[in-house]
Amino acid sequence: MANPAYVAVDWGTSSFRLWLIGKDDSILGESRSNEGMTTAAKTGFAEVLASHLAKVNAPENLPVIICGMAGAKQGWIEAGYIDVPASLSSILAGAVAVPGQRRDVRILPGLAQRDQARPDVMRGEETQLLGALGPGSTGSQAVCMPGTHSKWVHVADGRVTAFSSFMTGELFDAISKHTILSHAVAGADQSPADEAAFESAIKAAYEQPAMATNLFFTARSGQLLHGLTAAAAQAKISGTLIGLEIAGAMTNAGSGVSITLVAAGRLQGLYEAAFKALSLSHNTIDADTAVRGGLAAAAKAIWPN
Amino acid sequence: MANPAYVAVDWGTSSFRLWLIGKDDSILGESRSNEGMTTAAKTGFAEVLASHLAKVNAPENLPVIICGMAGAKQGWIEAGYIDVPASLSSILAGAVAVPGQRRDVRILPGLAQRDQARPDVMRGEETQLLGALGPGSTGSQAVCMPGTHSKWVHVADGRVTAFSSFMTGELFDAISKHTILSHAVAGADQSPADEAAFESAIKAAYEQPAMATNLFFTARSGQLLHGLTAAAAQAKISGTLIGLEIAGAMTNAGSGVSITLVAAGRLQGLYEAAFKALSLSHNTIDADTAVRGGLAAAAKAIWPN
Repeated sequence: MANPAYVAVDWGTSSFRLWLIGKDDSILGESRSNEGMTTAAKTGFAEVLASHLAKVNAPENLPVIICGMAGAKQGWIEAGYIDVPASLSSILAGAVAVPGQRRDVRILPGLAQRDQARPDVMRGEETQLLGALGPGSTGSQAVCMPGTHSKWVHVADGRVTAFSSFMTGELFDAISKHTILSHAVAGADQSPADEAAFESAIKAAYEQPAMATNLFFTARSGQLLHGLTAAAAQAKISGTLIGLEIAGAMTNAGSGVSITLVAAGRLQGLYEAAFKALSLSHNTIDADTAVRGGLAAAAKAIWPN
Repeated sequence: MANPAYVAVDWGTSSFRLWLIGKDDSILGESRSNEGMTTAAKTGFAEVLASHLAKVNAPENLPVIICGMAGAKQGWIEAGYIDVPASLSSILAGAVAVPGQRRDVRILPGLAQRDQARPDVMRGEETQLLGALGPGSTGSQAVCMPGTHSKWVHVADGRVTAFSSFMTGELFDAISKHTILSHAVAGADQSPADEAAFESAIKAAYEQPAMATNLFFTARSGQLLHGLTAAAAQAKISGTLIGLEIAGAMTNAGSGVSITLVAAGRLQGLYEAAFKALSLSHNTIDADTAVRGGLAAAAKAIWPN
């Protein structure tokens, strides 16, 4: 087994993921839980981290590099924001040390867009982005990182020029659980099983984004009038939200832009199906690999030996 | 005091409104409560109606005309739908008698659009529409009836040719209460006090409807980066949803169409401000007057003496 070099942590709002990384970049151990920022703010960030370090038997002096909501104002210690436009490599320089720890623990900053009309923020995705593209990337592209608040980032020659968050994932939950459509989707699995309904909703929302909240309602009226299934109703809601997001992102990006999808699992499948339905070519980078890559770049910049 | 002629009831999902109407069309008595379909389905429709009839001292044999969700499948008795395209006067012919009542109680049907791509339904708004335009209306117009599920109806020479529901009101509630934006709007009054933020959101969503779920997010990021107030955050959410709805409706209606707003109170103020911000001319008809007018037309058609 390779010697451990550092510990990498992706600490989101509702999830915690830790990897013990070897000097040869191999993964020597892994630990995950739902002890995200919300939980850790109550139980203690240092305690949560210590319990996971113990699980992977991390040596006592091994340094820890963290990205995500642990660096938010309500997190462990505020790691601030790098303002865009910014180079991807500037993220590496902004890490903040957590004081009073036995080992060296650093948290990476987020990105902020201080535009008055389109203010935006991210925490964690900037590290995925760094890992997905590398600090010296060239050319112009739109990077899509789907999730609770999907991020679309425009990168030109290694610089983040602008980005936009879309509340796709969170709206899917709120609409499915807290509106009349909760009856329409009752009993459906989380992943849309009705591919035809999903594709048709993707296209409809992409072509007529202004009709989005009407398209949602057709999940209800389609059930009343045409016996639409719960799976189709769910696929309609999901497809409408994702189609709307892609329509907005592509308006900003311009139609000829090259698209990189950074995703994994269920979301990867949904967005790949959506791009296919819209004949938008893209390449996919695994989200877990990307975030570990960004944390590795930061670790090597901070502890270069 | 004029002799009572009939009782008019607007029975929605969550509200009940009853008027005792005189032979000279005057309002002799009124009773309101939150005993809408959802409540009445548990406590009994006949019992709810009887208690309100007692409050206004309605004579024992006076007939009752009802519109709204009392005629839904989950309501008192199903009053079915009239399929569009349909003349406004066909609504009058579709009333269903509630069996087993001492007095003559009738419920008006809803409207259904059975189009496979854009299925839609309404119950109650068809009666407002009848009252707002009258059964013999001429010309072509788009009628906007804002609410939980706003309805936009296209009427040409007294015929409903098509309509669309937008989940504006319900999404405003779900987004304000069940997403991260609940923190951004905490403490704000229900009516947007920040008119500038409302107008700017109306315009932004109308011009770039595809950016809607990004515009919602700026209520959060604007608070983090620019200290946006709760009132402005709320105005942003409300303005984005209403701007999106109007963008969708106007795409369908065409830009030259004449707009009639059927509304009252807070919603009337919001939609009038929205139309003004977008330089869309319109005329307003009071929603209460409209629904009573529709119920009166039905009562006179059914009990013509």
